Amino acid sequence: METIILKEDCVVLLDQTLLPERLEYVECRDVESLAEAIMSLRVRGAPALGVAGAFGLALAAMHSKGVGRREVLSDLEAACARLKSTRPTAVNLFTAVKVVMDAARASDDPRAAAVDAAKRVFEEDVSMNKRLEKIGAELFDDGDVVLTHCNAGSLATSGRGSALGVIKEAARQGKNLTVFADETRPLLQGARLTSFEMVDAKIPVTVITDSMAGFVMKNRGVSKVIVGADRIALNGDTANKIGTYGLAILAKAHDIPFYVAAPTSTIDSQSRSGGDIEIEFRSRGEIEFFNNVRIVPREADVLNPAFDVTPAEFISGIITEKGVFYAPFDFGL
Amino acid sequence: METIILKEDCVVLLDQTLLPERLEYVECRDVESLAEAIMSLRVRGAPALGVAGAFGLALAAMHSKGVGRREVLSDLEAACARLKSTRPTAVNLFTAVKVVMDAARASDDPRAAAVDAAKRVFEEDVSMNKRLEKIGAELFDDGDVVLTHCNAGSLATSGRGSALGVIKEAARQGKNLTVFADETRPLLQGARLTSFEMVDAKIPVTVITDSMAGFVMKNRGVSKVIVGADRIALNGDTANKIGTYGLAILAKAHDIPFYVAAPTSTIDSQSRSGGDIEIEFRSRGEIEFFNNVRIVPREADVLNPAFDVTPAEFISGIITEKGVFYAPFDFGL
Repeated sequence: METIILKEDCVVLLDQTLLPERLEYVECRDVESLAEAIMSLRVRGAPALGVAGAFGLALAAMHSKGVGRREVLSDLEAACARLKSTRPTAVNLFTAVKVVMDAARASDDPRAAAVDAAKRVFEEDVSMNKRLEKIGAELFDDGDVVLTHCNAGSLATSGRGSALGVIKEAARQGKNLTVFADETRPLLQGARLTSFEMVDAKIPVTVITDSMAGFVMKNRGVSKVIVGADRIALNGDTANKIGTYGLAILAKAHDIPFYVAAPTSTIDSQSRSGGDIEIEFRSRGEIEFFNNVRIVPREADVLNPAFDVTPAEFISGIITEKGVFYAPFDFGL
Repeated sequence: METIILKEDCVVLLDQTLLPERLEYVECRDVESLAEAIMSLRVRGAPALGVAGAFGLALAAMHSKGVGRREVLSDLEAACARLKSTRPTAVNLFTAVKVVMDAARASDDPRAAAVDAAKRVFEEDVSMNKRLEKIGAELFDDGDVVLTHCNAGSLATSGRGSALGVIKEAARQGKNLTVFADETRPLLQGARLTSFEMVDAKIPVTVITDSMAGFVMKNRGVSKVIVGADRIALNGDTANKIGTYGLAILAKAHDIPFYVAAPTSTIDSQSRSGGDIEIEFRSRGEIEFFNNVRIVPREADVLNPAFDVTPAEFISGIITEKGVFYAPFDFGL
């Protein structure tokens, strides 16, 4: 099962909004359709968004009608601006499009350079993910009961996933793990995607509502919490799916280690602390309706932050492809 | 808007599963249809379940074909057993049916005694609620930002509600309050019912997913949390809608007072601590499907505890019609 593929003339995405009931791929033939797919979360997850951004620029390069270097670069700049406008919090998207743009700008043949650089972003994401999995798996023990939030799996990356990649690697090594997956409202990435990946990997998984996390920590022997990240500040403060902050507080109250798993590309050298991280607010419709059924009265307000920031003090360790970082966090950047 | 009414030959319920889109009443003409309505949450909320149980026995008395005292009592016993089998955690249901049964057993005319006692349960619930509201409103200040979970409002009681009754009374006294309502998965009582009641009372309300509670406590100035209760143990440990326990931990981590509002009929003299409280587990379908759309893969497990227990140490005060109780809790029972 592939999450995102670059073909000769299009980017093919597994449409994650249809899972687990339908496994369908969509073809994005231009940057605008890819940008729409990113905004509507057909593709999501910080590392996968990096690859999607890079592939978006490859698409722009392949389809550019520019005849000279300058015209191609101009098309790439426009595509870059559009892609960066889609999701403000995931730093990987910004990092990846910068890598591709830098390669294009430095080359006599920006078209070829953009496509090559985009493919390298993908390949590096895959190999980075493998290193991260091995490093993270060391922290898990036979018999661990693991709670996770949202989906930091193969659907969110080019590999087997950050948080879920670690779980899958530990299981592959023969450790018996059982997983609780928060359903992750409002878009249910945990119920729909994480459970799907765990079933696929033959790892026992139990879906709970987000509000049951405290209950299972207290009554069902949760021994580790692991989540992904959308942006990590230099002091270790971590932005991740809304609800992660509360989960970290609950983990601390129950003396349960709380791990973040993310590639170092998620660390944002421009954010000194969590206060510097821009939080994306999404539409009220995601909470107001469920599958076109109104569940909130028209007259009520709705708040829909897509992410929250977990202060570094609640994080037991940040698992990256370069090793596990512990407080006080110093990523050497 | 009435939640539950006893008529000459039936019990009429506002069908809360259809709110906020449709305001429809259902008529229960026998105990079985009322029991079904309780199990499917057409009527819910601890105090309202007490009234529903009492009215169920009134219904059994009115429809009993028994000719003598013994036969009527036998019909009442059968109805009592059926009603008690519906929801194990709400102690008010058990208390109310016991009050009605005791009155019937002590009378020469159990039919009339049961109907009279059921009406008294309702009237006492209304007057108790008014006292509780006034006592609780004293704890709230102009400008308070209040977070609540599930629905402890007029839809859950015969009055204006326990937690929401307090909020409405404080607002009626001229205090400007704003309310955050957790949507309360899986059945969305906060999104559907609490927001509906707040809009009706002209109190500004913002619906959030349960996972956003930490975010709004940290970033939106939440100054008080107030919830209802389904059963309170003698040491103050409180069973309430799943998610309440986590919310109490979050409130403590943010130094926000956490109040429980409930009539003293919610205190269970048989439960010395939270460990004695039976927790109802409901069907996996409530989490697996949303409006008939599958959101969890068939092969994944699901856990669905309807309630959790908040230890007394996390509770700043328990607001009852007899006053506010503080730790160490001693209800004088």
